[in-house]
Amino acid sequence: MTNTFSAVDVIRHKRDGAELSAAEISWVLQAYTRGDVAEEQMAALAMAVYFNGMGPQELTNWTTSMVDSGKRMDFSSVPRPTVDKHSTGGVGDKITLPLVPIVAACGAAVPQLSGRGLGHTGGTLDKLEAIPGWRAHLSNDEILAVLTAVGGVICAAGEDLAPADRKLYALRDVTSTVESIPLIASSIMSKKIAEGTSALVLDVKTGAGAFMSDPERALELATTMVALGRDAGLRTRAVVTAMDVPLGRAVGNALEVAESVEVLAGGGPADVVELTLVLARHMLELVGIDADPHVAIRSGAAMDSWREMIRAQGGDPDAVLPSARHIDTIRADRDGMVTRCDALAIGRASWRLGAGRQRKEDPVSPTAGIEVLVKPGDLVRQGQGILRLHADDAVQLDSVADFLQAHQSAPITIGAETEIINRLPLVMETVEG
Amino acid sequence: MTNTFSAVDVIRHKRDGAELSAAEISWVLQAYTRGDVAEEQMAALAMAVYFNGMGPQELTNWTTSMVDSGKRMDFSSVPRPTVDKHSTGGVGDKITLPLVPIVAACGAAVPQLSGRGLGHTGGTLDKLEAIPGWRAHLSNDEILAVLTAVGGVICAAGEDLAPADRKLYALRDVTSTVESIPLIASSIMSKKIAEGTSALVLDVKTGAGAFMSDPERALELATTMVALGRDAGLRTRAVVTAMDVPLGRAVGNALEVAESVEVLAGGGPADVVELTLVLARHMLELVGIDADPHVAIRSGAAMDSWREMIRAQGGDPDAVLPSARHIDTIRADRDGMVTRCDALAIGRASWRLGAGRQRKEDPVSPTAGIEVLVKPGDLVRQGQGILRLHADDAVQLDSVADFLQAHQSAPITIGAETEIINRLPLVMETVEG
Repeated sequence: MTNTFSAVDVIRHKRDGAELSAAEISWVLQAYTRGDVAEEQMAALAMAVYFNGMGPQELTNWTTSMVDSGKRMDFSSVPRPTVDKHSTGGVGDKITLPLVPIVAACGAAVPQLSGRGLGHTGGTLDKLEAIPGWRAHLSNDEILAVLTAVGGVICAAGEDLAPADRKLYALRDVTSTVESIPLIASSIMSKKIAEGTSALVLDVKTGAGAFMSDPERALELATTMVALGRDAGLRTRAVVTAMDVPLGRAVGNALEVAESVEVLAGGGPADVVELTLVLARHMLELVGIDADPHVAIRSGAAMDSWREMIRAQGGDPDAVLPSARHIDTIRADRDGMVTRCDALAIGRASWRLGAGRQRKEDPVSPTAGIEVLVKPGDLVRQGQGILRLHADDAVQLDSVADFLQAHQSAPITIGAETEIINRLPLVMETVEG
Repeated sequence: MTNTFSAVDVIRHKRDGAELSAAEISWVLQAYTRGDVAEEQMAALAMAVYFNGMGPQELTNWTTSMVDSGKRMDFSSVPRPTVDKHSTGGVGDKITLPLVPIVAACGAAVPQLSGRGLGHTGGTLDKLEAIPGWRAHLSNDEILAVLTAVGGVICAAGEDLAPADRKLYALRDVTSTVESIPLIASSIMSKKIAEGTSALVLDVKTGAGAFMSDPERALELATTMVALGRDAGLRTRAVVTAMDVPLGRAVGNALEVAESVEVLAGGGPADVVELTLVLARHMLELVGIDADPHVAIRSGAAMDSWREMIRAQGGDPDAVLPSARHIDTIRADRDGMVTRCDALAIGRASWRLGAGRQRKEDPVSPTAGIEVLVKPGDLVRQGQGILRLHADDAVQLDSVADFLQAHQSAPITIGAETEIINRLPLVMETVEG
């Protein structure tokens, strides 16, 4: 089939608004993975998809070809139903950390193959790597062993899992072709389909701190992904949730691990607990397990699963988490009520403190980050701490602190007590497969 | 200024429909020329321009930055007014060959810096290289010397003439971003502005055998280029001309040289003569020279200029042109009238015989090509020759002959004598600066 198509023709068809055939899609993605279609050709094709979109069948074929560019995992030997969760990413979104052991403790198996963070939202693997000794990279045999023994595993996806997506994801990042619903949906779903889970809950974030800030577009993305899941025989459900304000108090790797452990211990911020339980219930429902995740927390079973899971990957669940060399507190400059707490601005500040990376080769700081001490609706007094900044580099800390204190770039606004606050509800929509 | 912009932002701005600022355009084109903006980023930007177009000021800035990516030629020492002509390319379009010596003989100086052919329309340099000894590559000093002495020079554009366009042109070819009016207009005009001519006549081809088959789009391209010329202080005029039927009889390198010499000798096909004289008159008018190009032919002055010009570049105007080893004639399969003579199909067939190249590194055959023996409106008898094919490779010749004789792919249609023929008029529009 190699000689039947040319990249120039495939690009032109998409550019001119045609739906690409299954054969064209299969050819172009395999040839791109092999390097026979050049990066500049795929960039032009991605931009044409950005403008002209994809039809439902076309997108299903595209997703299938992304899956077929690599190998599929096989969890059929695991004696529990498999179910996974994916979030499109938000500031302070550490939900995966408490969620996986909770769902595992309820009797499901959660094969969470994850990526690194890029930009202002952190990556799950980066967070767990703050735990001394914990290893993200497991062989396929190790993944299967941990999943079978513990019921949950959070680790790096292998190189052979949807390699077309791996290349395309990096390309989209440098060519401004990220924000395309078909490209986002196929990227996420190809990895989850290749991962071999039998069911999937998607947490699609929306609001100022999300990658998809417009709720209507977020809903469209959710609907598109649920349809792709259905076409691939994967039981899929999506929730659209708020990301206008950071989730919980902690933003940054070790800080978020600590907050996750608080949740597993029965405490933690209300929004983190609520979203974790909502997602856990959807996951358990999808695989027909009648168990209450809240009970798994209160009984200590979820914490046991967590400790077992961390230990199985070389981590010490009892180790003291690393802490930053320098801490600075931003204080309220007046009395009043918090009217706004900008997730995007806080995510970016945490990233500048060292918690995130700009390029995928960059290291991240396990200790850097921000504690968000107030939320919209809270009453504050002048001089009260509103943000606590953590960093290893004092110069970086000062620079970020100055920026966050400047009136124009302050992520937290303090207004009159009578002001009306516009906040999105935490769970906005549920999309069924 | 290097650190002020990022390619990702520039692409996103264009993708989202913004007009790029002069500073963004200057930065991205210089950085691309240096290799600091990657091919895949420029591909994405080109596709975004394809979809969102460019505003007039934006396009002027883009063109200026393309010119500024290299060096400008300086013909101020030439003691005649300079005027050039550019054609967007057509099948059998050898007009440059007789036109340059005719206009030179009338007293203007024509600095025709040209490119190679790519695809189904041949390149002027490829045609002239069929003349034994003739050299396309001259130094800048040689160009100036020939132009001063003869009044006309046809040669390869130097590497430092709009290098951004050189890179972008090759990129567009492999990314299906060729057919964009702003990208075509800026590509052509940047080279002509950098070339340093004081006046320019554009021959924009339209119809089935042209690159811009739709007459309305051809007119838009003509208008866009004339505006760019005006903005750059270049007296510019454009004609939109027909390319539904091949120009003249000869298609192919040596064949077209022979036909050009016929025109200079006072003969040649009527359409080639007419278009040559139309373009010559526009060129002379633009630089205020009151001379009749027809007289320059009849007096032999144009032929003298041709011989001088060929000789100045190492060619022998008296040499016998090379001829193909194999010739085959396609004959009419019935009596009737020619109702259609498809320029695109004939151009492609000539290309397949060896007259054109697929990639810019490929050699071309000087001898391969097609003689078009009939035109729409001609009456033919069964068995009469309608096309004569020339090639050095007998297998290639047979394969093309079989293809052209098959009913479905025949470029010439013979119908009833009463049929109405739809032909475009040779000169369709004139656009003044």
